[in-house]
Amino acid sequence: MNLQAHLNSALAVRDQFPAIPAGWHYLDSAATAQKPQAVIDAITRAYGHDYATVHRGVYERSAAMTASFEAARAATAALIGGEEHEVVFTRGATEAINLVAQSWGMANLKAGDRILLSQLEHHSNIVPWQLLAERVGAHIDVCPLDSHGRIDLDEAEAMLTEQHKLVAFAHVSNVLGSILDAKRAAELAHKVGAKLLLDGCQAAARLPVDVSAIGADFYVFSAHKIYGPTGIGALWARKEILDSMPPWHGGGAMIDRVTFERTTYLPAPSRFEAGTPHVVGAIGFKAAIDWVNGIGLDALHAHESALVTECRAALRNVPGITIFGPDDSAGIVSFALDGVHPHDIGTILDDTGVAVRAGHHCAQPLMDYLGVPATARASFAAHSDAGDIEALVRGLDKVRRIFG
Amino acid sequence: MNLQAHLNSALAVRDQFPAIPAGWHYLDSAATAQKPQAVIDAITRAYGHDYATVHRGVYERSAAMTASFEAARAATAALIGGEEHEVVFTRGATEAINLVAQSWGMANLKAGDRILLSQLEHHSNIVPWQLLAERVGAHIDVCPLDSHGRIDLDEAEAMLTEQHKLVAFAHVSNVLGSILDAKRAAELAHKVGAKLLLDGCQAAARLPVDVSAIGADFYVFSAHKIYGPTGIGALWARKEILDSMPPWHGGGAMIDRVTFERTTYLPAPSRFEAGTPHVVGAIGFKAAIDWVNGIGLDALHAHESALVTECRAALRNVPGITIFGPDDSAGIVSFALDGVHPHDIGTILDDTGVAVRAGHHCAQPLMDYLGVPATARASFAAHSDAGDIEALVRGLDKVRRIFG
Repeated sequence: MNLQAHLNSALAVRDQFPAIPAGWHYLDSAATAQKPQAVIDAITRAYGHDYATVHRGVYERSAAMTASFEAARAATAALIGGEEHEVVFTRGATEAINLVAQSWGMANLKAGDRILLSQLEHHSNIVPWQLLAERVGAHIDVCPLDSHGRIDLDEAEAMLTEQHKLVAFAHVSNVLGSILDAKRAAELAHKVGAKLLLDGCQAAARLPVDVSAIGADFYVFSAHKIYGPTGIGALWARKEILDSMPPWHGGGAMIDRVTFERTTYLPAPSRFEAGTPHVVGAIGFKAAIDWVNGIGLDALHAHESALVTECRAALRNVPGITIFGPDDSAGIVSFALDGVHPHDIGTILDDTGVAVRAGHHCAQPLMDYLGVPATARASFAAHSDAGDIEALVRGLDKVRRIFG
Repeated sequence: MNLQAHLNSALAVRDQFPAIPAGWHYLDSAATAQKPQAVIDAITRAYGHDYATVHRGVYERSAAMTASFEAARAATAALIGGEEHEVVFTRGATEAINLVAQSWGMANLKAGDRILLSQLEHHSNIVPWQLLAERVGAHIDVCPLDSHGRIDLDEAEAMLTEQHKLVAFAHVSNVLGSILDAKRAAELAHKVGAKLLLDGCQAAARLPVDVSAIGADFYVFSAHKIYGPTGIGALWARKEILDSMPPWHGGGAMIDRVTFERTTYLPAPSRFEAGTPHVVGAIGFKAAIDWVNGIGLDALHAHESALVTECRAALRNVPGITIFGPDDSAGIVSFALDGVHPHDIGTILDDTGVAVRAGHHCAQPLMDYLGVPATARASFAAHSDAGDIEALVRGLDKVRRIFG
């Protein structure tokens, strides 16, 4: 099968996305994914038919809702090769990283300890560690990138010391699409006694992930980037680590016994889920995971890799273009046009029915490194096809004519 | 109009709740409210027609979604008499209280300071303060209740000292339904220089609330208890307090400029909303608020007060019953039956199509105070009617026959 045939035939799922009208080219899936009808239906059914609280009701509807909620936890864990009781539902990946920083980090880091991040991290994998480092007197080191825009693990190996307690890397860069050699990152971290946290926001929707095979210690991702609802995400942590972490938020559903003299807490993951959870979010999350599993992450990855190859080849013909990131990017292509601010690219593309993101992508240190204030970014999903790439190239012709 | 006529006619909204089938009597609205079709439709439309990310997209769909998201903030603020920029969206009331405890609390409380709570607080308004108090060396005092189950403000006045930096009370008790004289609580707190936080989870869905008229400093509530979606709630704080609070979670959307050397933050409320927000949650929240405003909180309160009067009168005829809380409870009636564990009440009622909650209601210190391990609790909402109360009484007859 040649590439064009692959692109036209591989994933015929576009008609499952009601919010993508004909003629609209949604190339901003790395910001948030559009939702297949199956996910919307699961949410509608949960609110409109099955709705009740979880964990506390003695009536059958509530017991059924609790079972659905916990089935979502099992599906979330299974997606990345973890165990059910190792998954904490959070508002999203950002909260998950903050939870690790403030619970595990405050308990395990002290003055003089070091944290290794990379130059391409999203702000959500920088700022929580800065807040932690300030509080305990730890230091942050920054691993540089190789010439293709990948985290340079040879450099990481040279930088890591016994003082490093944590390595926190993006599994896939949200700007460059570059894929980390996560297994090697885990080996390097563990060699000096550090833990490895992977920001899986882009990876979980684009690659098969197996935290056991990787040897990761923490893995975080958001439902809304993997075709699921807003307001929910997951922290996965190895059982012995999660069990050792002190409570973070206090409230209902995370306690064993409360008195004003002394309060005791439930085991993980409940200990970290204070308050009524985002029940319907979890149910929608599971529907999204089921939908993704129906396609298969191998097939999704192959599809998006083919689109990246096609897109980079097409963009190379655009005069004045700079394309960032490696050729084997996982579904994300960032670029710049000489003499045109990326914001203007985004605005003009919008006029032609093409939605891309333009900006710093919550990765200002990477922008500084690339020497640009911003980039334009096209990102793919299951519903993307060659027509989206053709529309992007046509749109860029218009940009060039206007700024010509 | 007599009471029965009022109950039968006042709020004919039951057919707007698709998850309440005929013959099912949902009396657990204090745990979570069922959703009117208007809210479900708003959520379905947001995912199935309008969906995009907020704040970051340069394309029109994203700008429209951002406008909807911010309109939700304005509606949320308006519901309780606050200003738009004073509202932070959180996962729910529990997270909102934890945010105040960990951001404002850590910055403003020191060893020897005191916090005044009450005997009837929900765990979510106890445990966050215990975690804070442990961390800074502060002390927690517990205001007793009067004989009707209201927070005894005369006692509060006698207990408050210049060492008290915070008073945190439920506006309406989730177990007893007792309504706080919030204005007086604010005056008492302010007289000693303390701030007042009100847990408005039950109040916001049941009473007209005006934080300015009250003089509150912090107000928190959850969308899912006011007919809205799961996974979202609000912290309202007076502008000068919110502006003074340090960042809590780090991530995208809350920063001004990130470098590895130094990060600066956006003003409130953005500073407290790290990461992609629960966009569709906010839109559903607004739909719920619009729906509630369509009925009017005065009408809702009158409706639920009439139901409470009817319910308490009917329950008084049940042999062996103890009814807790004041006669003017805001829509919540807790009770116990001699010789029957509340869990068994709940299970048998479920068999008769009546859903009540049985347990400690995340208020173990109140159970200790009442001298019971648990209570059964019936709670009302806009769709409740006299038929629900009749079904409850019939169900309790069955409970008594079984345990006879």
